[in-house]
Parts: sequence; C-alpha cells; structure tokens
Amino acid sequence: MKNICFTLKELAEKVGAELVGDSTHTVRGLATLQSADSSQLSFLANAAYEKYLSETNAGAVILAPGMAENFAGNKLIHPNPYQAYAELSHVWALYDGSRVEESTIHPSASIDSSVQLGKQIVIGAGVVIEAGARVSDGARIAANCVIGADVIIGEDTVLYSGVQLYHGVVIGDACVIHSGVVIGSDGFGFSPGPRGWTKIAQLGSVVVGNRVEIGANTTIDRGALDDTIIKDGVILDNQIQIAHNVVIGENTAIAACSAIAGSTTVGKNVIVGGASGIAGHLTIADGVHITAMTMVIKSLTEPGVYSSGTGVQPNDKWRKSIARLRQLDKMAGRVSALEKMMKERGES
Amino acid sequence: MKNICFTLKELAEKVGAELVGDSTHTVRGLATLQSADSSQLSFLANAAYEKYLSETNAGAVILAPGMAENFAGNKLIHPNPYQAYAELSHVWALYDGSRVEESTIHPSASIDSSVQLGKQIVIGAGVVIEAGARVSDGARIAANCVIGADVIIGEDTVLYSGVQLYHGVVIGDACVIHSGVVIGSDGFGFSPGPRGWTKIAQLGSVVVGNRVEIGANTTIDRGALDDTIIKDGVILDNQIQIAHNVVIGENTAIAACSAIAGSTTVGKNVIVGGASGIAGHLTIADGVHITAMTMVIKSLTEPGVYSSGTGVQPNDKWRKSIARLRQLDKMAGRVSALEKMMKERGES
Amino acid sequence: MKNICFTLKELAEKVGAELVGDSTHTVRGLATLQSADSSQLSFLANAAYEKYLSETNAGAVILAPGMAENFAGNKLIHPNPYQAYAELSHVWALYDGSRVEESTIHPSASIDSSVQLGKQIVIGAGVVIEAGARVSDGARIAANCVIGADVIIGEDTVLYSGVQLYHGVVIGDACVIHSGVVIGSDGFGFSPGPRGWTKIAQLGSVVVGNRVEIGANTTIDRGALDDTIIKDGVILDNQIQIAHNVVIGENTAIAACSAIAGSTTVGKNVIVGGASGIAGHLTIADGVHITAMTMVIKSLTEPGVYSSGTGVQPNDKWRKSIARLRQLDKMAGRVSALEKMMKERGES
Repeated sequence: MKNICFTLKELAEKVGAELVGDSTHTVRGLATLQSADSSQLSFLANAAYEKYLSETNAGAVILAPGMAENFAGNKLIHPNPYQAYAELSHVWALYDGSRVEESTIHPSASIDSSVQLGKQIVIGAGVVIEAGARVSDGARIAANCVIGADVIIGEDTVLYSGVQLYHGVVIGDACVIHSGVVIGSDGFGFSPGPRGWTKIAQLGSVVVGNRVEIGANTTIDRGALDDTIIKDGVILDNQIQIAHNVVIGENTAIAACSAIAGSTTVGKNVIVGGASGIAGHLTIADGVHITAMTMVIKSLTEPGVYSSGTGVQPNDKWRKSIARLRQLDKMAGRVSALEKMMKERGES
Repeated sequence: MKNICFTLKELAEKVGAELVGDSTHTVRGLATLQSADSSQLSFLANAAYEKYLSETNAGAVILAPGMAENFAGNKLIHPNPYQAYAELSHVWALYDGSRVEESTIHPSASIDSSVQLGKQIVIGAGVVIEAGARVSDGARIAANCVIGADVIIGEDTVLYSGVQLYHGVVIGDACVIHSGVVIGSDGFGFSPGPRGWTKIAQLGSVVVGNRVEIGANTTIDRGALDDTIIKDGVILDNQIQIAHNVVIGENTAIAACSAIAGSTTVGKNVIVGGASGIAGHLTIADGVHITAMTMVIKSLTEPGVYSSGTGVQPNDKWRKSIARLRQLDKMAGRVSALEKMMKERGES
Repeated sequence: MKNICFTLKELAEKVGAELVGDSTHTVRGLATLQSADSSQLSFLANAAYEKYLSETNAGAVILAPGMAENFAGNKLIHPNPYQAYAELSHVWALYDGSRVEESTIHPSASIDSSVQLGKQIVIGAGVVIEAGARVSDGARIAANCVIGADVIIGEDTVLYSGVQLYHGVVIGDACVIHSGVVIGSDGFGFSPGPRGWTKIAQLGSVVVGNRVEIGANTTIDRGALDDTIIKDGVILDNQIQIAHNVVIGENTAIAACSAIAGSTTVGKNVIVGGASGIAGHLTIADGVHITAMTMVIKSLTEPGVYSSGTGVQPNDKWRKSIARLRQLDKMAGRVSALEKMMKERGES
C-alpha cells in the first residue's frame, strides 16, 4: 500500500459519504475490521462480518445508513459501503489513475522511429515497440513488454511487465493488462489432410474495448478472418483462454482458468465461474450466470444459472457413484420392467 | 492482413484450382461470404454457409466442383475448398514462409559469442541467446525471447516474442512457437520425506520435431532422465501443459487448456478436445478422439470417441441430479430388492 | 545433464549408502534401468521396474537392502533408493546448489541504483530490477526477469528467465521459480454497479516462504488488503492459479493446472491432483488428498481422499449415462412409487 495519509473529511468528500466523528482524524490505509488499527480505515459491506464491528480498532468504518447506530466510533455513512471502499482503495494503489507530468521513457527501450508516442506516458526498461504502433496519452507500459507492429494502445491504459501484443492488436482506453498476457497469437486453425495439418494463416486481429481488465497469463487469439472482440467493461481474470473470433459482450466477467472456444458469442453482463469451458460456435445470452467448472456444450439462450459436474465426494463413495452412473441406462430398463410387471399383475 | 494484391489467375495457379470468370480480377485479401466485398476472395467449405452464397459480394469464391453451378460469379473450383483456403491464406500472413534476404539482428540482443547463427535469420530486440546454442538458417526469433545454453532451433522455425527455452531444448524445422511458451522447465518430480519434499533434478530435456505448432503460454517440461518428446506435425493450442517424459505422436492435435500428466504416451493422429486432462503413466492409442473437458484416468487402447462430464443443466435441476447421483448406490439396492420381491411373489 | 564424473565411492558417501562392488568405478550420469549403460548409475525404487534389474547394463544400481541379493553388479544399498536418487540427481543438474565465486551481472540488466545486491549473485541479460528491491546472497535471476519495486528475493533463490514479480512481493530463501511465473498481479476484485464494474485496488501483497518451488506460467495474485501467503516447503506445478488472499500451508503439493479461488485456506501436507478447482472462502484440512480434476465446492474438514467427475467412457455410452443422469430425480420417484405399491399389495 502506498504510504500516504488523508483526513476522514477528505476521504468522505471523495465518495460523498456522510462523516460522523472526528473529521481531522488521519488514516494511512485500508484494512479489514479484524486487522485495522486506529490509523486505518475499514468498511462493513457483508452481514457476515458484522460480528467484528464491536471489537474493531479501526480509526473509522464505512457503513450503510442502517448500520450507523451500531458503531460508536468515527464513521463514513454511505448507501453502498463496498462501492465506497472500491473507490477509495485507489488512493493507496501503486497507480492512482493520475498521469505523470512528463513522459518517461527508459533508455533501454527499443522503439521504432515510426511509433507515435502520446503525452504523459511511461515506457519501462526493455520494452520493444515495433513499426507503426501508437501509444496514446497517459498510457503506461511496464518493463519488457513487446508491442507488435501497428498496435494501438488507448489513453491511460496500463500494461504490466512482460505483456506480449501481436501486430495489429487494438486496445482501448483505461484498460489494465497484467503480466504474461498474450493478445493476438494465432487462432488454432488447421485444415486436415492426408499428410497432416495445413496451418490456416490467421488474418484477423483482436479488438479490445475500453475499461477492460485482463488478468495475468490470459491469452486471446486473433481471428481467422474477422476479429476477436472484447467489448467495453469486460473483466477477465488470470489464465483465461479466448479463442479466435469469440465476441464477449459489455461488462461480462469471467473468472480464472476459463476457456471459450472459437466463434462463440458471449452476451452482456454474463458471469462465468472459474475453470469453466464453453464450446465453440455457441451463443450465450445476456445475463447468463455459469457456475465454476461448468462444461457448456450447447447454446444458453435464456438468462439463468447453469452448472455441471458431480461435486466433490470422499473417493470411496465417488467410485460407487460413478460405477452406478455407468449402469444407469441398464437400471432404467430394470425400473421400467418392474413397472410393467407391477401393472400386469395389478390388472390380472 | 498484409496489403498485397493478386489476380485470380495467380491465386488459382497457386492451389491448382480451375478458374471460371475474370482471370484478371484482382483481390487484396480473404473474407467470409457474409463480409467479403468485390476486392476480396471467399470460400465455401461447410454446407451450413451455403445460404450465404447467393448474396455474397465476394470478388470470387473457392468452391467444390459440385457447388460450381450454384454460383454465377468468379470462382476457383477446387476439390477441397478448405484446404485451398488454408494454402492461400499464407500469402496475406505477416510471415508468408519466405526468408529474409540478409540476416537482421537487433543491436540490443545479447548473443553469446559461442552461438552458431545460420543464414537469413531474424533476431529481435532484447533477445538473449546463451552459450553453445544454434540458430539454423531461416529462423526468426522475435523480441525478448530467451534461448538457453545449448538449445538447437531448426530451419525456418518462428518464435514469437517472449518465448522461454531452457538449456538443451531441441526444436525442429518449420515450427511455430507462440508468445509466452515455456519449454524445458523442470518436471514436477519430488521425493516425499519426513521433513518435506526433496526436489529431483530434472536431467532430461525436451525434443520437439518438425512442423510443430505450439500455442501461447503452453508449457512443456523437461524429462526427469529421458526426454519429453513432441513428434513431427503435432499441433498444440494455447495454455496446454505437457508434463515430464510425455511422448506425443505424429500429427496429434490438442486443443487449448488440456493437460497431460507425466510419462503418458499419446499416439499418432489423436485429437484431444479443449480443457481435457490425461492422467500420468497411461497410453492413448493412435486415432483416439477425446472430446472437450474429458478426464482420462485409464489407458485408451482402442480408437474411438471418448467423453466424460455431466454436461450443462440449469442450476436447480443440476442440484437435484447430483444429489441423486450420491444416492445412486442405495437406489440400485432398492431396485434389486424390488426385483427380488417381485420374483418371490411371482413364484408364490 | 552436466558432463561430470564421480566414482561410486564418492556417490555412496554423498547419500550414506553402503557400496558393494568396484568403488573406483566411475559414472557420468543417471539413467533408468532400461536405458543405462556402464557409465551410468541407476536405481530401483518401484516394484514395477524390478523386472528390468536382471537385464540392466547400468554401471551401478541404488537398491533397498531387501533387493540387494537380487543384483550381482555394483550397488549402492540405501534404505530409501528414491530419496538417494533425488539427492544424487543434483550433482548433474545445471545448478547444483553451490554459489558462484563472484557475482556476475550482465551489462544489459537495468538495476535501479537503490537496489540492494547481495554477494555471489547472478543477474542475467535484460533483467529489470526496480527501486528499493533487495536481492539476497546467492540468488540467481535469469534473463529478462522483471523484479518490481521493493521486492525481496531470499538467499539462494533461483528465478528462471522471464519471471514477473510485482512491487512488494516477498520471496523466501532457496526457492525455485520457473519461467513465465507471475507473482503479485491484482486479485480479481470488483464492485458491481449499475454502470458496470468498479475495480478494487489490490493493496495486499504476496509472501512466499522458504524452499518453495513454483512451476512455469503459474500465477499468484496479490491480496486485496491482507497478503496472499505460500508457506515453507510448498511445491506448485505449472499453470496453477492462486487467487487473492489464499493461504497454502507447509509442504502442500499442487499438481499442474489447478486453481484455488479467493480467500481459501489450504492446510499443511495437502496433495491436490492436476486440473482440480477449489472454490473461494473454503478451508481444506491438513493432510487432505484431492484427486485430479476434482471440483471442490465445500470445505473439507477431515483428512481423506476426495474426488469428483464422471471418469471417461466411450462417447455413445457416456451420452446415455448423462441423459439418464438428468432423469434421475424422476427415476427415484418411480422407484419410490414401486416400493409403495409393493408394500400396499404385500399388505392387502
């Protein structure tokens, strides 16, 4: 956490909270109710943590109006404490969203002379930017990133170290791209033939919208002919795989290690739990919620919550369950036979 | 797509297609039937897209002989339109397969003096090549790759930016290795003991054959004693994990996010769907097809299609299914009891 | 394998084995019983390989006392041959655990002037180390790694090429971190709102203990407020995802491609099979063993072996199984109806 102090008055004003208590009290950071000391601000956003409120040592707590009378200390009263916490968290972040005064470009960066560099940018050591690329105002590109030819990076977008962007990729404004992300690698397209696979050159690109977050080591392949598209406000966790020609709608959130196969279209405001897989050439409707480790092998055309898997069991019971699962078709036949017999005897 | 134009005559000759129409018509790229304009070439390879043929604006279409009479415009008639498209796609690719005239080595690359450099190679900015390595003719190593000591890179092999090859790894000719790939990292070998795990040094290496494609952020571990082996013509998608001492046979294709545990041997012409897992010390026969998200926990000794998982259901129905799955062993006992009773009463 | 020779006497002394045979016989490496020649040492640690003992050409074999009389050649008798092999393997490893005499720092590395550099360290080409970081004695940082501001790297820790450590991350002593690993990236924390997701700055860090191994392309996110913690002796395979505020206990082993969601606490001496997923906010007890591809959606409070999944079946049978699985709730009702009828008729 960045070492920087604020008065409660300053913080309340930043998020439009009502301040009750010592407005000059100074805090140096955020902490949970359990661990906060008097120099830290905390928050109560989840009823499960209400039990910690009476014993917290926090210098102040962000609370919903309905909880205010349960806490005697300094408090910032806000209709949505979690949102207020989210907004305030950035004042202690490494990058608080503000731009540097003057561009700083590390002398070890290799930047082609044709690259367009905006104002107030930061380019780290060992960064490589190839011909025809554009880095917009306020962008930050950390050490050892590689920006391919003709790539466009939008305003105030942050690339952490070691990001690889292939030629022609377009990244919007105010995106955050974490280390190890690869965008624009070839889609997995091959024509089968008698002497093996013939590679199909992947001639599309990847277009990423504004305010998109992409987690560490996530990969997004370029399209075969058309582009792979990630729309505004999408949030992708770590180690996600997005295949060629996938389209992901606005504000969709995908948790870590999920994979979306080629040409699938995912709607807006979809939530995908971790380690899920969505097969290719499907359509996932707006607002669908897929729980973790689900295997989606058909289009989901209605909003709702979808799941798969067997859940976890002790191994000995699990062995019995799956042995029985294999006999299930036979068992269904036995039940039908019993029903038929029962009916015949009832009639006789 | 690279900005380069060809006449239909030139393109038809490249793939041995029969040209019907204006042989001097010039196209600047490839596109789908739906989006192509008159300056673009399209193709019909899948009956599902036949409906777009009548309304396409493409300057020409690659068609199978049986479809030729259904299209009045310029056409390239070829017995395998998908294969013809695959072959033609490369003329518009960033790297069309031809070599540079003269080697270009970026001055910021760190290349040990003992490295053997072939002819007509390209080495990007920030590349590191350690002692004893060999880069063969026509190879291209993009920015910030690290090539360990004694590595061999075959002719015309392409490494995109940020690939990490450990010491002693051997890569064949005409391979394509995408960004973030790691080859030759230590296999996961440890001896358990009373005071914790003792690491087993991984003393084998990785040998990759010719014409192998390896997708972004895939990892291939070095062998414990013998080598991990990827044979000619294998295609690996993104984020695949190949453990130590795995052997993968010729022309096998593995989709994204699959994992193969240690010492498993996968045959030739095997197809593994995305996010599948294959346990260790197994044998997968030639020609096996494993569908997506399958969990392979025994050897598959016969060709055929294999699957697992429960498929996707609405969450409320899924909860009932898996609750019943846990009771299945008991339910089987109840069915047996009913059968026995029915038999006894039938006999009485 | 490093080209270095030892007499059997020297090797027996290193691991405290009893040597029977020619103590001056010299070997140049390790190999399996099947492939070893007379210049190589082998071992028998698994009864499944006993059949190869009579025909091996190995120059010597490490054996348990009970097996000694079954082998006439040179032998190193040790109560735990696998452990002896593990210990001896390091003498032929690229890094045998010893330090360099003098630090070697590649001139292309970009190291901030405020960085504290220990003795006997190795820093490769293109490495970037930011302000306030500390590299302890004996550490090795291979090419193109990026070490963020204020990071601490413990003694004798090895980072292979292309590792990315975010600001403030702490790594203990004698760790091994493989290529492509990302530690300290932002946890996936967002507040949902009517206009989309508000990012929550991730203000915690990651603390990695001593003797931890982290496999290629694994990602470990920084905590939201508190730290993500990996305790001493943990071994993580490739492509593992550890979310924010996870705690992993001593000597726990996690196989490749597994994912642990946010705020879950995993105990000591836990074993997690490959491609498993553990949901967030759970507790996994000490000594639990989770088999491969298991989906853990509830806390596991007792030691034991846990599993999930359906296992692999031929596709046609699998289709029937999962169709029946969906009908299982109805089928249970049919069995109950039969039981009721049977009872009524029995009573009539």
